Amino acid sequence: MSQKDRISGVLCPVVTPFNPDFSIDIHRFKNHCSWLLSHGAGLAVFGTNSEANSMSVDEKLKVLEELIDSGISPDRLLPGTGCVALPDSILLTKTAVRLGCTGVLMLPPFFYKGVSDTGLFESYAEIIEQVGDPRLKIYLYNIPQFTGIPITLRLVEMLLSRYPDTVVGLKDSSGDWTYAKEMIESFHSDGFDVFPASEAFLAESVPIGGKGCISATVNINPGGIVSLWKELQADGSHSRQDEVNAVRHIFEKFPMIAALKATIGHYTDDPSWRRVRPPLDSLSDEQLDMLTAELHETGFKMDV
Amino acid sequence: MSQKDRISGVLCPVVTPFNPDFSIDIHRFKNHCSWLLSHGAGLAVFGTNSEANSMSVDEKLKVLEELIDSGISPDRLLPGTGCVALPDSILLTKTAVRLGCTGVLMLPPFFYKGVSDTGLFESYAEIIEQVGDPRLKIYLYNIPQFTGIPITLRLVEMLLSRYPDTVVGLKDSSGDWTYAKEMIESFHSDGFDVFPASEAFLAESVPIGGKGCISATVNINPGGIVSLWKELQADGSHSRQDEVNAVRHIFEKFPMIAALKATIGHYTDDPSWRRVRPPLDSLSDEQLDMLTAELHETGFKMDV
Repeated sequence: MSQKDRISGVLCPVVTPFNPDFSIDIHRFKNHCSWLLSHGAGLAVFGTNSEANSMSVDEKLKVLEELIDSGISPDRLLPGTGCVALPDSILLTKTAVRLGCTGVLMLPPFFYKGVSDTGLFESYAEIIEQVGDPRLKIYLYNIPQFTGIPITLRLVEMLLSRYPDTVVGLKDSSGDWTYAKEMIESFHSDGFDVFPASEAFLAESVPIGGKGCISATVNINPGGIVSLWKELQADGSHSRQDEVNAVRHIFEKFPMIAALKATIGHYTDDPSWRRVRPPLDSLSDEQLDMLTAELHETGFKMDV
Repeated sequence: MSQKDRISGVLCPVVTPFNPDFSIDIHRFKNHCSWLLSHGAGLAVFGTNSEANSMSVDEKLKVLEELIDSGISPDRLLPGTGCVALPDSILLTKTAVRLGCTGVLMLPPFFYKGVSDTGLFESYAEIIEQVGDPRLKIYLYNIPQFTGIPITLRLVEMLLSRYPDTVVGLKDSSGDWTYAKEMIESFHSDGFDVFPASEAFLAESVPIGGKGCISATVNINPGGIVSLWKELQADGSHSRQDEVNAVRHIFEKFPMIAALKATIGHYTDDPSWRRVRPPLDSLSDEQLDMLTAELHETGFKMDV
């Protein structure tokens, strides 16, 4: 796969609906994926916002197979496959590659703290060697506020030096534009694709080589964010940047995952969507009222 | 099980030996467990120092069954069964109870941060309800420097109020004696058994109701630490406290897990023990020389 064939643009860390017994509601999940695809978004299933770290490996394997069986193209799938335990990351990554997914988004192992870049390199290397498939494309996942494990420039250098055809990009959820900018500027020319986790950075990142965004709020505003991406691709303009920022900033005032799910539930008139898996809390009625009132003020309406 | 029948004293978060391909070396694991038992230590397998968070659920299920099949009494086993994903914690806990383990040590789910006590309560409650077995005895596991999720007094109160016969204790690895003391003083009279994670607190904690320790350095000094515990039980004396502290403090200068494994490898003349699973790094030869020189100065010798 040459760099130009790789996925770019707007990707969604798809929120995961649950049944009353907290099992995965595959029916609603597929419907939400189809709706996102119809707006031009790619599917970064099993991300942080998907509550993927509250799901077992077996659950993820089953969902991935069901999505593809239902006709979703693996070209549009970038599943999260980095787990806390090495054998889990290997199994999930191997399966994603076998199913033809365009790439995988890979958290570092995140329980042990203060680990060295060498130790992290060995962890990624062990996964790559055990998967042993030239089709594997890894996007590193930097989210130190959850993992306590920053993906450093030095680690990326070490990985690119040994696995230039396999380690092909990074999602940055740190929210630190200086970090994302440095990653783009340092490795863009090596064919390393950086995706900040917020659409708020699109106008700044795309001109210097950013490849898009993988953003929570794509779950509720795929149309607006994809339109902004298309403007930027067409002629570098970004007239919709303020509009998508306004919507995003409302969500940043609430617990993100619960707020996204409650919003989907609100606009689809389907309260089942409000359910989150423990240890997360659902949004309260009061919070949802505040959220939807603020959204209403911006003129936003979820296009369902 | 009445409180007096519950496990107490000196427990070991057993380090896990690995084969060259990083699979679990069950032969060395059993031998180490037998040696610990012969010194009077209980087995807190699958703890932080066991690299349990780098092991899959399937690996843990298999090891637990093999240990018990090999004749180790489940009365002496307190496996760690708290995982990042809810279904994994349920499966592992259910199996530990079925196999007759005396209790389970349970991390909170540790990826998502800033979760509420209510959310954590729901997580523990869901596990308890799904396991649905009156034999279940949960020891909560406080290690906020790794999880980012402190186990608060309020959470313990909520759990004791709803599940007084199931939530029976806590291991505190925070290293904060004020916290451990407050836990003991607040809940000791409810039959809630607190184990600080360091033998350095034995002389202070036992007189106020502490039930022992679950400590990394039991892996290399079970005899010394069990002797101190026995003194305290016999007549409240603690003539060996300084001696066990001196050994412990040496290990605190090095990466703990790698240092414990390298020490076992050194004294058993078995370098295979030095192996750690990525993302951890093994101890360097230079570090091991420093460590063993310091141990030698104290007169310590691992009794193998």
